[in-house]
Amino acid sequence: MSPTRPAESMNVQRAEADRYAVCNGGKKELYLENLLERKLYIREIEQHVSDKTITEVWISDGGKFVGITWNDGHVSRYHAVWLRHNCHCPSCRSNTYTNLVPLDVLNAELMVHDVTMEGEKVVVITWSDGPGEGQHRGPIPTYWLRYYCYSQEAMRLRREQRALIFQKENILPEVEFKDVMKSDVGLYKWLRELSDHGICVVKNVPTEKGTIVKVAERITHVQRTIYGETFDVVSTPDPINPAFSQAALAFHSDQPHYEAPPGIQMLHCIQFDPHIVGGENVIIDMFEMAEQLREERPDYFQILARVPVTFQTMHYSRSQPAHLQMSRPIINLNHRQEVVGMTCAAAKLAPLAVDEEDVEPFFLALAHLYNMMNRSSNTYKFRLTPGDLVTFNNRRMMHSRTSYEGQTGHRFLQGTYVEISEFQSRLQVLHNLLGQGRLARHCGNFSWL
Amino acid sequence: MSPTRPAESMNVQRAEADRYAVCNGGKKELYLENLLERKLYIREIEQHVSDKTITEVWISDGGKFVGITWNDGHVSRYHAVWLRHNCHCPSCRSNTYTNLVPLDVLNAELMVHDVTMEGEKVVVITWSDGPGEGQHRGPIPTYWLRYYCYSQEAMRLRREQRALIFQKENILPEVEFKDVMKSDVGLYKWLRELSDHGICVVKNVPTEKGTIVKVAERITHVQRTIYGETFDVVSTPDPINPAFSQAALAFHSDQPHYEAPPGIQMLHCIQFDPHIVGGENVIIDMFEMAEQLREERPDYFQILARVPVTFQTMHYSRSQPAHLQMSRPIINLNHRQEVVGMTCAAAKLAPLAVDEEDVEPFFLALAHLYNMMNRSSNTYKFRLTPGDLVTFNNRRMMHSRTSYEGQTGHRFLQGTYVEISEFQSRLQVLHNLLGQGRLARHCGNFSWL
Repeated sequence: MSPTRPAESMNVQRAEADRYAVCNGGKKELYLENLLERKLYIREIEQHVSDKTITEVWISDGGKFVGITWNDGHVSRYHAVWLRHNCHCPSCRSNTYTNLVPLDVLNAELMVHDVTMEGEKVVVITWSDGPGEGQHRGPIPTYWLRYYCYSQEAMRLRREQRALIFQKENILPEVEFKDVMKSDVGLYKWLRELSDHGICVVKNVPTEKGTIVKVAERITHVQRTIYGETFDVVSTPDPINPAFSQAALAFHSDQPHYEAPPGIQMLHCIQFDPHIVGGENVIIDMFEMAEQLREERPDYFQILARVPVTFQTMHYSRSQPAHLQMSRPIINLNHRQEVVGMTCAAAKLAPLAVDEEDVEPFFLALAHLYNMMNRSSNTYKFRLTPGDLVTFNNRRMMHSRTSYEGQTGHRFLQGTYVEISEFQSRLQVLHNLLGQGRLARHCGNFSWL
Repeated sequence: MSPTRPAESMNVQRAEADRYAVCNGGKKELYLENLLERKLYIREIEQHVSDKTITEVWISDGGKFVGITWNDGHVSRYHAVWLRHNCHCPSCRSNTYTNLVPLDVLNAELMVHDVTMEGEKVVVITWSDGPGEGQHRGPIPTYWLRYYCYSQEAMRLRREQRALIFQKENILPEVEFKDVMKSDVGLYKWLRELSDHGICVVKNVPTEKGTIVKVAERITHVQRTIYGETFDVVSTPDPINPAFSQAALAFHSDQPHYEAPPGIQMLHCIQFDPHIVGGENVIIDMFEMAEQLREERPDYFQILARVPVTFQTMHYSRSQPAHLQMSRPIINLNHRQEVVGMTCAAAKLAPLAVDEEDVEPFFLALAHLYNMMNRSSNTYKFRLTPGDLVTFNNRRMMHSRTSYEGQTGHRFLQGTYVEISEFQSRLQVLHNLLGQGRLARHCGNFSWL
């Protein structure tokens, strides 16, 4: 693997490339067969792309571009350099998708010299790699070209498929503990609800401490934080965090002081005495709130997307002292001005360090956002009962809690987290292995696409 | 904790605020004493801020601002809303720094009504909280005002303190295993080298498997990934990753497909037979490379900071299949156009999905960056010997490896990671407890400030 390998190994690798080059050797058929089988890893390709064949292919702009017309009428146009970067010959791409194309050949003089079809499923391209580089010849499967087509229309369709659903169900989405634990179908249902609605309750979980870790590990290892593998939400005297009291908690994301705040948050209700008044949980979709804010007050939306805040936790009286700080805007946009991340916890805000003229507008915008959330009826409000394990996306949903009255320890939740990238990975795997191969929706992990 | 608490609890909290209000009760002296003691958590305040006293304080713009002249001549100017957000009365701030100020009072009509000194170390402010809100009165310590002053000059000084050092030592920074393990002073030295130079070798580590976890846990728990708690770098047949072969590896960041790629990378050399030729490690500071690129080719710099790429890992043949994807630009800038993050691994790049006109310039820019790195002499190149444990910041440094020849298993490194936020937290704690209280430098965690 050496996209820009040291000079001494370059000749060796070039020789290797020549030796295995798909259109020059005896292994060609076998290689092409393996290549086409790899598409099975992406179910969506199987479902929606594999029946697309090429009607016409042509070279334009003196070799700068390749145009393709597909059997459904769609037209694609690929830059010579883009194609070269996607060459699938054995010297350019490993069987685990590692890209081995040397970057130095991706220069402005690189041109497509020739395009031919190898059956219906493989395009073979010859490039002139630019001054002193000679020619390179390699295959690209047609499914790959269609799946990764970057026309405006293709990119729009992909964006639509990944878009979030904001519609709130009247009933909190639920799955059964035994289903989640015993089969991947049950696991998939749970993760789909989490992805679509941002929240799901796992019902009838044994009220034994530690069970939450077994549930989390259906996705992957838990995400450890300064609060450990799991944490106990009980009311304690002199709490280090207001969560460990009986006080009301305003809407917040957990642990925004991390570069990657916890992803999926889980709270397992082990004890909650019926006579306790209050202590209900409230969950709200902050991506939806951001869109409402963008509509109602575009000026406030813009300032929350531009002005950095610092989330801060300083605990020097712990056995392992913590001093965590993270600065970024509350709303995070990609290059298309779409919201791709959002973290907020007013209680964790360090003093604002911005240009003077931004101070007042920032606070007005923040207060307005909280005001919108507090008056919204588009929330999930519920009281957990023992055996409930509520799970929600801490990168998309904010949560709050009403205050409660009762004796210490009679409301006991055990909590843990799962990292957001690993959640999304598991969901994408299940979409491909058990579902229709759709793309995982945005999950608030700052990913731009 | 309820910055925007539900209406029903508002009256209760207001009453509480009245009860404890610092300037109305018998607990005033005790409260102010506790308040001033909290500064001990930030050593820098003790060292550089605590001797700053106020020479003059005034209200301007009809209560919109408070101006302060300090005994060293520095002039600060604070917005009324900013001050209100930093009120330190017991109803506005817990003893663990949680900010309890209700956001709805931070409105445009909020004004400073009165400012007085309470001794030399505390400013007491009275605000008119706006229509229908009445007045609020509370203290702010002078050290806090000076430390968090957001004048252009104060912010410039903070930025300078956090800036990275790019100067490469001729000798690779080293610390002794026994020093790291036995004292916080040794730990601090190690983390300081890592912060200043981006790399440090821990010497004379016992060549026992698992020792690396003990070293990592001097900072905090290890960061688990799809490769587990630790991973073994040995040459294997049919490797799932080119790292597990004898091939040369180009410069890369590890696991860029995560939202938060691994922070501090550690590689413990357990076996490396002397007769093996090659297999050297090379490390380069990519933040420095970015600055060189900005100077040499500002157009390339801008395109790498604007165009999103997708890093992708698809492993469906694992016992737990993985399908990880993360999209963002290779260079990440904050609002001041400073580099705050960078991830690159050409081998992990998915097909580019961008506007057509960006395709060619992007690849030219990427090739140029790699070319700069490959020709740079500003690298650390070294051959590990058994007992060496190299540690480097995977968010700042890229690493590569020369190819090597020899039998399978005769070069054996064990690796692990530590999360970048927790590394920075531990370093900041040690700066404050053992050092001069300086601010932790930027570590590539995308933090804007």
